[in-house]
Parts: sequence; structure tokens; C-alpha cells
Amino acid sequence: MTLDRAILRRLSEIVGPANLLTEAEDLAAYAYDATSRWAQRPEAVVFPTTTDQVAAIVRLAHERRFPVTPRGGGTNVSGGSVPIQGGLVLGLARMNRILELHAENLVAVVEPGVVLMNLNLALAQQGLLFPPDPQSAVGATLGGVVAENAGGPAGLKYGVTKHYVLGLEWVLPDGEVVHLGATTTKNRTGYDLTQLFVGSEGTLGVMTKAILRLIPKPPAARTLAAVFDEVAEAGAVVSKVLAAGILPAKAELLDRWVIQRIEEMMPLGLPTDADALLLFELDGAPEAVDREVERVTAICRASGARNVLVARNADEALRYWTARKAGFAAVFGKARTTLAEDVTVPRSQIPNLIRKCKELERASGITIVIIGHAGDGNLHPSILTDAEDPEHFQRAQELMHAIFNHALALGGVISGEHGVGLEKRPFLALAVSPRVLQVMKDLKRLLDPHGIMNPGKIWE
Amino acid sequence: MTLDRAILRRLSEIVGPANLLTEAEDLAAYAYDATSRWAQRPEAVVFPTTTDQVAAIVRLAHERRFPVTPRGGGTNVSGGSVPIQGGLVLGLARMNRILELHAENLVAVVEPGVVLMNLNLALAQQGLLFPPDPQSAVGATLGGVVAENAGGPAGLKYGVTKHYVLGLEWVLPDGEVVHLGATTTKNRTGYDLTQLFVGSEGTLGVMTKAILRLIPKPPAARTLAAVFDEVAEAGAVVSKVLAAGILPAKAELLDRWVIQRIEEMMPLGLPTDADALLLFELDGAPEAVDREVERVTAICRASGARNVLVARNADEALRYWTARKAGFAAVFGKARTTLAEDVTVPRSQIPNLIRKCKELERASGITIVIIGHAGDGNLHPSILTDAEDPEHFQRAQELMHAIFNHALALGGVISGEHGVGLEKRPFLALAVSPRVLQVMKDLKRLLDPHGIMNPGKIWE
Repeated sequence: MTLDRAILRRLSEIVGPANLLTEAEDLAAYAYDATSRWAQRPEAVVFPTTTDQVAAIVRLAHERRFPVTPRGGGTNVSGGSVPIQGGLVLGLARMNRILELHAENLVAVVEPGVVLMNLNLALAQQGLLFPPDPQSAVGATLGGVVAENAGGPAGLKYGVTKHYVLGLEWVLPDGEVVHLGATTTKNRTGYDLTQLFVGSEGTLGVMTKAILRLIPKPPAARTLAAVFDEVAEAGAVVSKVLAAGILPAKAELLDRWVIQRIEEMMPLGLPTDADALLLFELDGAPEAVDREVERVTAICRASGARNVLVARNADEALRYWTARKAGFAAVFGKARTTLAEDVTVPRSQIPNLIRKCKELERASGITIVIIGHAGDGNLHPSILTDAEDPEHFQRAQELMHAIFNHALALGGVISGEHGVGLEKRPFLALAVSPRVLQVMKDLKRLLDPHGIMNPGKIWE
Repeated sequence: MTLDRAILRRLSEIVGPANLLTEAEDLAAYAYDATSRWAQRPEAVVFPTTTDQVAAIVRLAHERRFPVTPRGGGTNVSGGSVPIQGGLVLGLARMNRILELHAENLVAVVEPGVVLMNLNLALAQQGLLFPPDPQSAVGATLGGVVAENAGGPAGLKYGVTKHYVLGLEWVLPDGEVVHLGATTTKNRTGYDLTQLFVGSEGTLGVMTKAILRLIPKPPAARTLAAVFDEVAEAGAVVSKVLAAGILPAKAELLDRWVIQRIEEMMPLGLPTDADALLLFELDGAPEAVDREVERVTAICRASGARNVLVARNADEALRYWTARKAGFAAVFGKARTTLAEDVTVPRSQIPNLIRKCKELERASGITIVIIGHAGDGNLHPSILTDAEDPEHFQRAQELMHAIFNHALALGGVISGEHGVGLEKRPFLALAVSPRVLQVMKDLKRLLDPHGIMNPGKIWE
């Protein structure tokens, strides 16, 4: 136990007793992230409502040396919000205001607890968009989106969260509040600490505000689905579309296993004997989008698509995208344990990566589902296993390792958007050299000398 | 003198005698950047041709404690490439190969000495574009573009250099070579050192390769120029265009002084009695661009434009953009000394900033030219003075200071794209808090304990 009575009393003073949880049954809910793969109860959970409160809490942790794990919606999937060393969970869900929204400047200022979907609903009313779209948008909060540098399907055209964070109000690990960046896209005043903190997984401090860059919502968007008899063939189509000068907003790949689960859950009339489905969203000016739909359809047909289904209206398009989301959920629902990987390769190497996964599946007899963001090379090969069956789980982990090595050999990375957290700690040394890892650890020690911020994450 | 004979001999061994300059007349050319505001001859200039040579040079500097100032095209304007503490200039112009170009992955790998314009000429042949477009593109090299996080007119729609750097090969200040990032847009393996090093102005090490994210070159682009009788009115139009859901590729503002200089140099038939010109480029699908040209024309007319000139073809458009470039050059040509500022404000505050500059001009009798990237709020108010007239120069610097303070009060920043270098060292403390400055200095000390990399820059 790291939180003694004096600390708990002080926490209660800072946030008020209604914003402090210490009962075992309350704490249980904060032991997990969205995967349920790791479990560790915190000793307490606080819900500050102001930056000053966050600063006071972190200062106390710095002085009394207890672990602080920031948490938003808890929707992350690499263990980032699991308080693996106990201590305090710093819940930011009650700091959930959109503080400013400037359509004419394409800028919003948000607190960390704002749910991503709620932000985009508010923005849509003014014709604006914050592009990053992790599948967890309905529950993910902006603090987590920034801490994990979230991606999603829109990464292909629009990049990831770091491309949309202009500035931060940030509580350093000793409790001092700093303001970084500004409301302008251009800002050249010293080192870009904003970009260093985006994606730092709660280990370098706590976001209390973010200044976000927005874009005008594209006036038109259309969806099409292309059906393929060979999944690797489908994976090759995206490069052909790009080489034709078309940059789709999204290009998602679903394999036969996922198609079948979708048809079980919400029949869309997808051919359950097909090997893969490629789902495209094209956005922009209406005339341009119409022409691109025709051109992508033609490219898919010329590349072996059995059929191309074009959504006739927004409702139909929404059904496809809901199915895509449900497909990913199904991956987690169908096995006791799912190792949903997050490897990313140069997109021309997608067919190669898919073939490797299929080979591994055949050789092992263990199901590897292929789903992911074909557009930006970020696939989520998901290994269905059971952590309570040690022999099976061991083999599953070996498969995971083989997929990592293959992705790296193809010039890829072991995590595209989920982060390292707890999940990839043992593998970080595959991805970065000893010196780079040392520089990262030196930065951590510089900013958090007592190691109180989200300890136990990123490296071992 | 910091370079003794043993050091010079070793440098000659590393790069070969043909790649080492030590004669005074040779060194003189490396004392300046593009502004000629600062002058300091280096003691030697080396031109390595491989990463190993760069590493050996930096390792030697680390061991023998001499200053190393990296230099590409020397086109920067804040003193970044001026070897203010003497020592060695590390010229990277001979590492000028485009190493890889993958159209299907939208990725290029370049050496630091590749000239930006040459990169885009090579990319255009494959229908690709690297969007950042500083006015110095004809001479600026990618090493400098990355070190300064270059911007330009395209910042409005496409962001700045940091949004297009996926990874780096980087020589740390002790000479060790590290590889950061990858060829994928999505990469979540630890802290984002790539983004920390972009914009670090040569103070944290040397880029020896960059992995760049590209976009498909938009199939169509059109240019229009709107003439206004009141410069602040022109400044307000950009926000109206954005609020209408149109995101131009570029939106540039030129005031009467610049219009008159352009007409002197290359008559385009611009009305020399007009107070301001707004120059737009709209790009995308042809039909969409045509419609946006009509809509922007209508918005300009409704906002008080006296006239809107639409370029009829690519040649005519090129003339406008050449005039824009020439206009900025004229600013430097018309005074002994030009303080070309780089303040950036939320774009809705542009009219406010312009009015303040006009007020200061009237009250002081010193010419302040207004030119810049109205689209992203990044203006270059340019104060025409003479550094050899101490009284005038002193008043000009006071005006500069007043403009900084006004930009900060409007929620802006003191440098949008030029960097701190030598020019803004005395003002950095206006822009960031003491603690933020301390964190930056701590990072510098962590990575460069002997302070050999581009010493004397960013802070005093």
C-alpha cells in the first residue's frame, strides 16, 4: 500500500469526498482497460474537476512518491490505463467541457474528459471535424486520445492525433502547470514539447487542456465495399488506388471470419464465402467524390473483385461502417483471450504480411483474424486464444512474436496506434535500438525523477 | 580558435582534403545566412558525403569540444546557420540524393542536402507532392527544412514540415547514429523523438536522412487575386472563406507597398492605388476547384473587394505567384536593414494585428510593410530600417518589440516559421514560461552535455 491515511485525507480535501473512491467494490471497475487482459486494483480513484486540483494531486504524489495512473474512458487496449503498481487512479472524466470552439480559426480547446464522439457531434453542428477516429470514439476521451496518439481508419488521408494537437495545458510530474504551443498551426518557439507529450501514454505528466486543429467537414462522403476471393489480393488494391492519385478517407480490410460474424450479427447480404471485403470511404466535393467512386470501382474490378457494392445513401453507408466496428468487437467476443495486434507495414507490403499470417494460421491451427486499416498499412491480426490454457496461450504468443518479426522485416513497426503500455513492453527492444531506448528513459527520468507517472509502462 | 592542427588533419582524413575548406576567402561565404544580419566566419567548413563521415566529425567535436554548425542551403532568415561561436560549419550540400521514392506508399527517403525544389520536381513526375513550401524552396535543403520545421503559404491547408516527417536517421551530439520512426504514418513505439528533433534548429544533432510522407499532387489548382481598398478588410476575408467550408491551399496578403514594388519590377497590371491584394490558390478535383473559385470570388466581392482577377491558366497563375515571391524579395532589397518579422496570430485576429502595425507606422514614421500568409495567421510585418543608423535602428527594434507584444496579447506567437536562431533569442522568454524554457535547456544538456551543436542559438 502506498496511499496512507494522511494522503487519502489530503486527496479528499483537494477534490472533495464525493470525488474520491476508496471502497473495494468501487475500485474494482478501475482495475482494467478495454481488453481485460490485465487487472490491478488501484488503492483510490480521484476525480478532479479543475487544473488546480490535478496539479495539487500530482504535487502530492511527487512529494509522497505514490504512483498516479491517469484514466479517461478506459477504452485503450494496451494496458495504458491499468494501475499496474497500484496507487492512485487519476480519473479525468469529470473535466469534460469543450471550452472554446472557433469555426473561423478551425480551433477547439477541450478538457481531457470530453468524449471524442461528443466533440465531433458538437463540431458537426458547425461544419467542422476532428479527424482521428479510433473505433472507441463513443467512449474514448480526448485525454486518452492525446496520450495514446490515437489513429483509426482516417489515418490514411488525415494522419493521426499528433497532427491535430496545436498546444497543451500540461501538469508536469512535479505538479507544475505549463502551457505549450498556441492556437496557431505555425509556432516555432523552441523545442516542440507538445509533440513530445502527445503519445507519451501518461508517463510524462497529465493533460488538462488541449488546443486542437480542426478541418472543415468534407461536404460529401460515399462508401463502397469490394468483395474479393483472395484476401492478399484485396490488400494489394489500396496501393493501386493511391497510385492512381486517389486518396480515400478510409480503406478498411475485413477477412472471411469477420464477414461471417457480421452476417451473424447484422445481416447485410455480404457473401460469406468471400475471402475478404475492402471498405472504402471517399470524401471531398460531391462531383469529385462521385468520380472517385467510379474510378475505385473500376480499379477493384480490374484487380479481381468479385463484386463492388456502392452504398446508395448515408444510411446504407452507416450500416457498413457500423458493421466494420461490430466486426472488431466480434473479434474480442469470440475467444476467451484475443491478442489483437497492431502491426503496421508500408502499405505495399500488406499482401506480404497477410500471406505470412495465413501461413502461420495453417501451420499452427490457431485462428488469426485479419482486420484493420489497409489504407495506412495498420493491420490488427487478431489471434484467438485462451490465457487460461497455458499451452495454447504460449503458442499464440509465439505466433504474435513471429508476426512482429515479420512486420519489422518488412520495414514496419510493432504498434501503429495502440501504444506500448503493458502489452508491448517485452517487445519494445525489437522496435528501437538500445541507445534510442536509453534516450527515452533519460527523458522520463529528467521529467519524472521519482517515477510516479503511470509507472511500469512502455518499458520493463 | 577552437580547431587546432590535429583536429584539422583529422577532419581532412575523414572527408578528404577536397571536402575541407580552411582558406579565409572560402570561409567568408559561410559567415552569413540569407539576411546578412549576422556575420561570423567559421574556422573551417567540411562537406561529408556519408552518414559515417558525419558521425565521425560529430564524435570528434564531442571529444575535442568544438562548435559544429550544420548548414544546408544557408537560406534561413533567423541566423540558424551562422556559426556565431566560430568552430566548424558542417556543410551537408553534398549529401544530396533522393534515396527512395515509393509512389504506392507515398513515401520518400532523402539525404539532407536535397534541394526542396528538386525534390518536388522529381515528385511531380510521379504525381506526388511534399507540401511545405517556404519561399526559399529554390535553395533550401531538406536538412534545413526539417531543422527549421519550414512552413510557407501551404500551411493553411497542408500544415508544416513536422506533419510530413515520418522518421529520421540522426547523428546524436556524441556521434552515435540512431534511426527514429519508420516509413509508416502510424508508429507508436515509445516517445516521438522524431517530432522532438524536427524544428530543433541544429542544436540536438544532425539529420543524415529523412523519411517523408507525401501526398498525391492535387489534380487541379487555380489562382485568383482580390483587390481591396483597406488592408484590414482584406485580412478579414480569409476567416469568411473558411467559415464557408472552403479550405484554400494558400491565402496570401500583400499590402500597397508590395503591390507597387511588384508593378515596378514586373508589371502585372495590379492597381497601385489599392491598399491590399489577397492571393488565393484553390486545389483539388477540377470541378470542385471551379466551384470554389466562384464561391471565393463572391465572398471577396461581398466583403468589399474592388475587383477580383481570376488567373485564366497555369502560366498566368505562375506569374502571380512569382510576383508574390518577388514581393518578399523586394522587402529586403529596399532598405539597408529589414526586420522581417514572423508573428502568427489566430487568423480571426489578422485585421487587428494589421491595424496595430498601421498605427505603429503612422506614429513612428517608419515604414512597416505587410506581407504574409494570411491563411494561417502567419504575417511577416517588415520594418525597413538601417542597422548603421543607431537611432533609427533602435526605434525600429522598439516597433518590433511592440508587434511581438501585440501578437502575444492576441493569443499568437512570435515566430511562426522562421525559428528563434539568433534573431529571437532575446524574446524567447516572452513566448514561453521560465519552466518551459528550463525543460528545453535540460533536454539540450541531456543530449548535448558539452554544448557543441550549434551553440549560441535559441536562448541566450
